[in-house]
Amino acid sequence: MTIPFAFWLVPIASVVALAMAWFFFRSMMSSDEGTPRMIEIAGHVRRGAMAYLKQQYKVVGIVFAVLAVIFAIMAYVLHWQNPWVPFAFLTGGFFSGLAGFFGMKTATYASARTANAARKSMDAGLKIAFRSGAVMGLTVVGLGLLDIAIWFLVLNAFYEGDNMALITITTTMLTFGMGASTQALFARVGGGIYTKAADVGADIVGKVEADIPEDDPRNPATIADNVGDNVGDVAGMGADLYESYCGSILSTAALGATAFALNPDMQLRAVIAPMLIAAVGVFLSIFGIYLVRTKEGATMKDLLRSLSLGTNVSAVLIAVATFAILYLLEIQNWQWLSFSVITGLLAGVIIGQATEYYTSHSYKPTQKISEAGLTGSATVIIKGIGTGMISTCIPVVTIGVAIMLSYLFAIKFDVQNMMTSENMSFGLYGIGIAAVGMLSTLGITLATDAYGPIADNAGGNAEMSELGEEVRHRTDALDALGNTTAATGKGFAIGSAALTALALLASYIEEVKIAMERTGTTLTNLKGDVINAAQATIPDFMNYFQVTLMNPKVLVGAFIGAMAAFLFCGLTMEAVGRAAQKMVEEVRRQFREIKGILEGKATPDYGSCVEISTRAAQHEMIFPSLLAIAIPIVVGCVLGVAGVLGLLVGGLAGGFTLAVFMANAGGAWDNAKKNIEEGNFGGKGSFAHKACIVGDTVGDPFKDTSGPSLNILIKLMSMVSIVMAGLTVALASL
Amino acid sequence: MTIPFAFWLVPIASVVALAMAWFFFRSMMSSDEGTPRMIEIAGHVRRGAMAYLKQQYKVVGIVFAVLAVIFAIMAYVLHWQNPWVPFAFLTGGFFSGLAGFFGMKTATYASARTANAARKSMDAGLKIAFRSGAVMGLTVVGLGLLDIAIWFLVLNAFYEGDNMALITITTTMLTFGMGASTQALFARVGGGIYTKAADVGADIVGKVEADIPEDDPRNPATIADNVGDNVGDVAGMGADLYESYCGSILSTAALGATAFALNPDMQLRAVIAPMLIAAVGVFLSIFGIYLVRTKEGATMKDLLRSLSLGTNVSAVLIAVATFAILYLLEIQNWQWLSFSVITGLLAGVIIGQATEYYTSHSYKPTQKISEAGLTGSATVIIKGIGTGMISTCIPVVTIGVAIMLSYLFAIKFDVQNMMTSENMSFGLYGIGIAAVGMLSTLGITLATDAYGPIADNAGGNAEMSELGEEVRHRTDALDALGNTTAATGKGFAIGSAALTALALLASYIEEVKIAMERTGTTLTNLKGDVINAAQATIPDFMNYFQVTLMNPKVLVGAFIGAMAAFLFCGLTMEAVGRAAQKMVEEVRRQFREIKGILEGKATPDYGSCVEISTRAAQHEMIFPSLLAIAIPIVVGCVLGVAGVLGLLVGGLAGGFTLAVFMANAGGAWDNAKKNIEEGNFGGKGSFAHKACIVGDTVGDPFKDTSGPSLNILIKLMSMVSIVMAGLTVALASL
Repeated sequence: MTIPFAFWLVPIASVVALAMAWFFFRSMMSSDEGTPRMIEIAGHVRRGAMAYLKQQYKVVGIVFAVLAVIFAIMAYVLHWQNPWVPFAFLTGGFFSGLAGFFGMKTATYASARTANAARKSMDAGLKIAFRSGAVMGLTVVGLGLLDIAIWFLVLNAFYEGDNMALITITTTMLTFGMGASTQALFARVGGGIYTKAADVGADIVGKVEADIPEDDPRNPATIADNVGDNVGDVAGMGADLYESYCGSILSTAALGATAFALNPDMQLRAVIAPMLIAAVGVFLSIFGIYLVRTKEGATMKDLLRSLSLGTNVSAVLIAVATFAILYLLEIQNWQWLSFSVITGLLAGVIIGQATEYYTSHSYKPTQKISEAGLTGSATVIIKGIGTGMISTCIPVVTIGVAIMLSYLFAIKFDVQNMMTSENMSFGLYGIGIAAVGMLSTLGITLATDAYGPIADNAGGNAEMSELGEEVRHRTDALDALGNTTAATGKGFAIGSAALTALALLASYIEEVKIAMERTGTTLTNLKGDVINAAQATIPDFMNYFQVTLMNPKVLVGAFIGAMAAFLFCGLTMEAVGRAAQKMVEEVRRQFREIKGILEGKATPDYGSCVEISTRAAQHEMIFPSLLAIAIPIVVGCVLGVAGVLGLLVGGLAGGFTLAVFMANAGGAWDNAKKNIEEGNFGGKGSFAHKACIVGDTVGDPFKDTSGPSLNILIKLMSMVSIVMAGLTVALASL
Repeated sequence: MTIPFAFWLVPIASVVALAMAWFFFRSMMSSDEGTPRMIEIAGHVRRGAMAYLKQQYKVVGIVFAVLAVIFAIMAYVLHWQNPWVPFAFLTGGFFSGLAGFFGMKTATYASARTANAARKSMDAGLKIAFRSGAVMGLTVVGLGLLDIAIWFLVLNAFYEGDNMALITITTTMLTFGMGASTQALFARVGGGIYTKAADVGADIVGKVEADIPEDDPRNPATIADNVGDNVGDVAGMGADLYESYCGSILSTAALGATAFALNPDMQLRAVIAPMLIAAVGVFLSIFGIYLVRTKEGATMKDLLRSLSLGTNVSAVLIAVATFAILYLLEIQNWQWLSFSVITGLLAGVIIGQATEYYTSHSYKPTQKISEAGLTGSATVIIKGIGTGMISTCIPVVTIGVAIMLSYLFAIKFDVQNMMTSENMSFGLYGIGIAAVGMLSTLGITLATDAYGPIADNAGGNAEMSELGEEVRHRTDALDALGNTTAATGKGFAIGSAALTALALLASYIEEVKIAMERTGTTLTNLKGDVINAAQATIPDFMNYFQVTLMNPKVLVGAFIGAMAAFLFCGLTMEAVGRAAQKMVEEVRRQFREIKGILEGKATPDYGSCVEISTRAAQHEMIFPSLLAIAIPIVVGCVLGVAGVLGLLVGGLAGGFTLAVFMANAGGAWDNAKKNIEEGNFGGKGSFAHKACIVGDTVGDPFKDTSGPSLNILIKLMSMVSIVMAGLTVALASL
């Protein structure tokens, strides 16, 4: 099929993003890394992080090799699957890993440079940290669009002609989403365990028992903690968002191919529309990044305004641009669909604001947690859990409203006929494109997100290099600034995960259809006629597989889905707990056995702590990750298509709520502690402070291990179901 | 219609249960209450508890009056509802409250008597405490069956003849379930907040700060704590299980009426079958209660064996009796349906065993939490949350298997046609009757459950009356014994709640059908014919309302359902946190201002602490409870029938998992602390002990406020949907 001219914007945007990333990277590298001590410490952290990443990629490589062989057998021997699956799967994983690797490389080079710049002024520090964050943001979107563009061109060269071609192409491309999800899950879980084992261990002995500050060089776990920030928060987050970004674009493309299956011309436009929105988003992100400028001597407020300006301008412009893109593409209902995109953008903003309200100590909920510190750590924990649970309300209602609105906009508010097969396809496309809207400016939102750990690490470097109060104070301020902007970023990440997962539900039905066509299955449609699977609509499939809420298979699936989210979180929490206990014992041992550490006369053995985190992460990430892959396969084999859909919906509803709860409770505890450190309720070292440190420590795995991994879990379960649809159809007795 | 002879077994069982309860109550009252000091303390607790209960019933009375008026308007003015609803609603609430009241009266009289008997020997203590627990168990089942029998006879006299009569009767009776649920929710939430505010407050200042033992008379919150055990654990639990018991019987009766609608003779038998199983269960429970005998000088092991013997023999006998009952009733598929009942019983046992494994310190998970105490309270919390989350796996899988099996047994494993309308009705009846099987021996399982708080209070009385180490040691042993048997009881309670809620889903469809008949609505069935609502099957309704997983209304409903569970828990957790903080401040104030308290020279002001708990409970229970009622109404009005079903399924899957997590995490923390108190990991007063006390304190609202309330929330949301079906049908645009 002729590739329309507009499509070439996608590879161009990809190349521009990667070029800009390279440019920002070079400009960061050209700045001064600071004193020999600073360079030495940054080197320790960099080597530790790279060593871990290599180790992790080895393990993940084995898993990928095994899965690719299984997919190859399913494709070439059993003919249950499309022959491209093994390759698409591998490239998805490879690019996702690459995004994490580049991001981390940049972050580890940037931390000392940021600290060094902060010796001059806060705005100098901001500039280096933010531009380095932008390297990460642009690399992720650049690699994502590159992978999408290449595969689209390759597959387009192979499949010709009929209106099924685009459906085959887009559903095949979805399987590279499974590669990306699998890699992302390992990165998030492994990285999350690594960083929080070190962090929790360092905090418990350092802050609570030995009463030394964060990142103090006397603490043997401090290097491991800083390595952790890089492997968890940078590499993990990069892989995670790479996956969200590609997942939303690909699932929407697949929905577009289905929705307009009978109109080949419109079909192609609907497929490339999400790609084009993303491509334009790249240019607007770069524009936004350049808006983030600071003057000499800028105040905290100026800096915040500057960062917000960049993200907000990009968001407003993409909203406007969407109208133009859809208009120029002459998409059916272009005005209405544009409102679907805006619904998605607004939902992201609202969730972000709600996140900020519940987790920032400028507001009551977090202040109340600090206050609970006056009566001890138990009330801090109770209050934090209560706040986290209550905080699920706004995001869930927002997502609910966004789902309804983006669906209804896409069908021109034809409420009376909202469930006809045609309107259903349009409506689902509307939900998908809302997710694309949310993520289209990822280039800059991820920059503000990735900037946080860089500032955090700069603070660590400043502390360990003993650069003095003033510098540490500046890096702390930069870090706090990152926390605020990251709240909005998190809103977009979690909201888009929910919408993407919904779009993937529809893609699953599509894959089942393709699998049934492959086996030549016929079915009875709603009118009672026997038809080929290819001719069946979504309502026909719902009826054929009895995917109603009174089907016990659906109900059991929903139970298992909700449970899977809890089980997965439980396993990762326990992993962090176990590793942290080992870390505590090791740090205590060093304090006991190596004389003079606490007086600063002896150097602690940083290596043994790095070793503990590395081993724990390697060892503990395997089981929960494989479980996430295994559950949808087992449910598919036992409970069939109806059970899988129940599983995905139960997992989505339960997992989304649980993820918001964990992320917000963790964030609130962190800031409740910071609130006290600013001098409230007794200030540093008070009874309330000690109580809130317990809260913060508990919150660490909540917000940085279990919570964010759930986003990926939800989508990975969908992706696995999609890739394994052939197996389910072949094995399950309906 | 002629009431069959066998039915009279139901009122007879009810009268026998109440008579036995009276007999056990008199025999408990005739034993000696002990020293004047013991009598005085018991009097304080009794008066506090009664004062609170009266206060609570006043508030609940107002809520009931308002709701009854609304229902009356809906029934008599708007004709959206059946005219019996307001009355059925009120009696359900009244009997549920009565069960709580009697149970509490007994418990408050029994505690001093148990402590006094424990001065002689452990087995004397067990006998009084267990028989008093039996008063509670038998009162609940007696009042439940009484209410069911009376309503069945009254409604039967009014509705005559056609095969719709029984459907109308059984669905009308279901609405008394809403009264029971509403009362139960207030009792659980109010009681739960009362008891845990006092408990948490007493522990934080008493155990952690002032280093005085549990229940020490020097602690001003200790009377409030003991009052709390009665209003929360006894009255709350009584109302809760009254509701589960009636709900499972009534929903199964309603499913039976639908399943056999075309066969009036079989229909009546199917309706009374669950009532008969419950009636026979009463006799077997009484038999089981008499099996619990102890010899002089029995060891702990003997006592446990004796308690288990009673419950296990009752359970085995009810399994056997079920075959006989269903055979004698000549129910279609009686053998197969009996296996459904056994599936339910076995599922209850498995969940109970799993609960014990994850929460008893005889096993690894809880021991590991104790061990985490060595590295501080943060690791205790992380580990406990991890364990609680992982512990959801076995119960959810068990319930999943039980749902599938009880459904498949009921349709004779006709897997190929499992979703035909006829098989669906049978299958759902199978799920309902499995829940009835689980709860049929509630008389004795509740006795072993209610016995726990009585033993706990006896310990409190012994401590405050300074009866010495030996007596306290015996009451502690009795308490520990109760914890073990209670694990099984909890398995039955939570498992039956899930199965009952599933059965209620089907009853909801039935109510929608009746509401549509009332308004004369017609619909297009799956064959494409236009029919009256009365003729529509469940699959027809699923198709008409598009209750498939691709309907955005269903998906949004599921999200909101899962969120409702979290929101509700968050609100109750926060309520406990707030009240506990006030309690801590008050206790600290008294220690500071009333000189000589800690030396035992001055009497603390117990009254002010009782006041704080009472006020907090009154004030804080309103909002979450009303929210639980409001959510399904709002969702019904906005998202219609499909949205409500999504809500109920999301709430059930998310809420069940969350409930298991919270109950088990709380139980495990409690026993992790006990494990240390038995001398492990440093024993009482060690660093690990202090860390585990924090865990225990956090676990208090988990296991005794938020967790158990979720059981009721799940069912109340279904009940509200059922009662409000008329409104949904009238208002929602499909």
